[in-house]
Amino acid sequence: MENVFRNLLLDGRRVDIAAENGVISRISPAAERDAGQGEPPRLVVPAFYNCHTHLAMDLLRGYADDLELMPWLQDHIWPAEAHLADDIVYAGARLAMLEMIRSGTVFANDMYWYAPAVVRAARDMGMRCAVSMQTIETGGPGRNDPKNVAANKELAALPRDASSMVFATYAPHAIYTVCEQTLRNIAAKARDEDTFLHVHVAETRFEVETCRKEHGGRTPVAYLNDLGLLGPKTVMAHCVHLTDDDVRIIADTGAVIVENQQSNMKLVSGLFPYKRAIEKGGCRLALGTDGASSNNSLSMFAEMKAAALCAKIESGDPTCAPAADVYRHATRGGAQAFGLDAGEIRVGAAADFAILKPDAAPLVPGFNRASDLVYAADTSCVDTVVCAGSVLMEHGIVPGEEAIVSAARDAAARLTGAATAGS
Amino acid sequence: MENVFRNLLLDGRRVDIAAENGVISRISPAAERDAGQGEPPRLVVPAFYNCHTHLAMDLLRGYADDLELMPWLQDHIWPAEAHLADDIVYAGARLAMLEMIRSGTVFANDMYWYAPAVVRAARDMGMRCAVSMQTIETGGPGRNDPKNVAANKELAALPRDASSMVFATYAPHAIYTVCEQTLRNIAAKARDEDTFLHVHVAETRFEVETCRKEHGGRTPVAYLNDLGLLGPKTVMAHCVHLTDDDVRIIADTGAVIVENQQSNMKLVSGLFPYKRAIEKGGCRLALGTDGASSNNSLSMFAEMKAAALCAKIESGDPTCAPAADVYRHATRGGAQAFGLDAGEIRVGAAADFAILKPDAAPLVPGFNRASDLVYAADTSCVDTVVCAGSVLMEHGIVPGEEAIVSAARDAAARLTGAATAGS
Repeated sequence: MENVFRNLLLDGRRVDIAAENGVISRISPAAERDAGQGEPPRLVVPAFYNCHTHLAMDLLRGYADDLELMPWLQDHIWPAEAHLADDIVYAGARLAMLEMIRSGTVFANDMYWYAPAVVRAARDMGMRCAVSMQTIETGGPGRNDPKNVAANKELAALPRDASSMVFATYAPHAIYTVCEQTLRNIAAKARDEDTFLHVHVAETRFEVETCRKEHGGRTPVAYLNDLGLLGPKTVMAHCVHLTDDDVRIIADTGAVIVENQQSNMKLVSGLFPYKRAIEKGGCRLALGTDGASSNNSLSMFAEMKAAALCAKIESGDPTCAPAADVYRHATRGGAQAFGLDAGEIRVGAAADFAILKPDAAPLVPGFNRASDLVYAADTSCVDTVVCAGSVLMEHGIVPGEEAIVSAARDAAARLTGAATAGS
Repeated sequence: MENVFRNLLLDGRRVDIAAENGVISRISPAAERDAGQGEPPRLVVPAFYNCHTHLAMDLLRGYADDLELMPWLQDHIWPAEAHLADDIVYAGARLAMLEMIRSGTVFANDMYWYAPAVVRAARDMGMRCAVSMQTIETGGPGRNDPKNVAANKELAALPRDASSMVFATYAPHAIYTVCEQTLRNIAAKARDEDTFLHVHVAETRFEVETCRKEHGGRTPVAYLNDLGLLGPKTVMAHCVHLTDDDVRIIADTGAVIVENQQSNMKLVSGLFPYKRAIEKGGCRLALGTDGASSNNSLSMFAEMKAAALCAKIESGDPTCAPAADVYRHATRGGAQAFGLDAGEIRVGAAADFAILKPDAAPLVPGFNRASDLVYAADTSCVDTVVCAGSVLMEHGIVPGEEAIVSAARDAAARLTGAATAGS
């Protein structure tokens, strides 16, 4: 079946875009009846790919903020997470997907507990999702819960690449929560099964220092590389603290860095060294919001702006991380991290795009579209979102929104034992 | 005339809020017919006060980004500004006010050319505005244009305090654009006429170093204080580079700092030392977005998030700048900078508030309202905006929006000689 989206403004031209089997099948000059009637065309732009999330943590948004890391985890997040269950994760993932769709995002690379619930949520919402077979051996409660073991077994039956809307990745959480032998085993399985790896790397100075002490002076990047975990199908969140050698290893292996500047600022992890790792080091880059407990938004607009501004202040160079580059990282960079031909509006690419309100104040006057999107736009500019040719939001309406919000409030109350202000 | 806003959620209670003569005259339990019918109440929160803007620069949004300061100014901004005219500034200020209203802001402290146009724009849009009698003696083209001299004369007839919706301030641009004698003269006039002062201070390291060289080792803050410019009616934008002595002087004089973290990051000026100046130093604080050429958004949501995150990363302390403090700075802090009893929803305070969509995803589940507003919310959450008891936006509709956008596009094209992508 062909879906046609009419009277769109693409790079200054009025076009109609046709989608078939999830792919853009035709881009043609806008049909006369639309172009002639003076109805202004709507801007069409690539949608966003959010490459590091903990979706169900949307339920913990605002539950504990402005705290030191360990009190935050031990006194707030972990006790709440001890009450997680399949239906709670489902409700949280749906809220997160609603938030993402509204802000123009069509894909999440997620890592969390009870992943089969995330699979169902993604299918019900029509989004693309990389869902993790997560491994955490130490840290926090419930890590060896048999239900989680069963969940990962269930996930193992999923496809492993982005030609499927929902696919599974291996996700050893981090070097400080998974032991060396398990990391080796996961690396071997991921290689054997040609599966993406999703891992937190070099997020804090403490992680790097501990790694050096425990692993013969090696950095987390060098350590993971020695264990066979780095390669072009490895997606590494954070990477805040990198040596020049780390940058070389990452570039050489083709592993992808996912920047999470807002989370890194909020938790005082540090600023990602964009200029050194990307502009000079040539590493591959995608953007992610991290979870709502440490951001607390899943909007890629805000993440893009933080990426551009933090790169400048970190490098001392206002020409660093120009808007067009940042916008490409948030779109095509994220898609390419998972081998998906998307993030460009072109025949043959995935039919994933956002249609914007052309007269939204932040997009006016409109000298430079990438600049407007990175520095000025926000969720309020998004009118319609299309993923794999299907409409996820039309004119600001996401089907079932009211029920999603209501279920999320109930689930959040169960998770924390506290009533929410909005309920 | 009394205006009544019904079925609102204020700090967990369902209330009706009545406004009379621009002030909140009554807050009473929501009338039964609304409360009983199951219609969910809408959240009401204080509106924002944007304390440092160059409104008409909205026309230059996206015109020149990601550049070094001097090429940016000399090759792009100043040549465009040479084409400014009264009607261009009017169109730009209207676009900026549209953008502000949509994002929940009811006041701007503006500094720009052709200020009488800004006065008209504020009156036409129903916003509060502090409009500057700007003085720039050097730097850029057109600084001594007789039309600007006439504009400032016209402004001198305006009231000087926030009991009027639109009032005039003295705005010596900065120490590097206004000579010592003129600064002294302006300080004397502001004192005699009991008028607010609006000035850029210690924005860049270069400014501080030059000041020390030219003014006997004094910092910009010490120099301005010696000239008599600092006092409780002085509003100082940026203040990125402050010594401990500077902080003491600012706290002692009661001058107000306006943080502009996004602009400071984009232009690589540095990060405002929030912990030292505010939490330890006890200085008064308000927030501002700066102009759209260096931000490029006027949304106070984005500015609040930057304020909270930058304070944390600058101080290395994740408990620094908690959300409730940042939200107060963006609301009551800004109002108090100009002696306006506003930024709190209380009988007797100005009837300025934003009504939010309670089910907007970023506000769900709703554990902590300040946290949700600072870290998660954006323009898309705002439903209705009230200023001095009058409705500026209702259910997302700002009257005349289409004409404002269209006029802004025309004005931007005249300013730059370039067509815009949106037109």
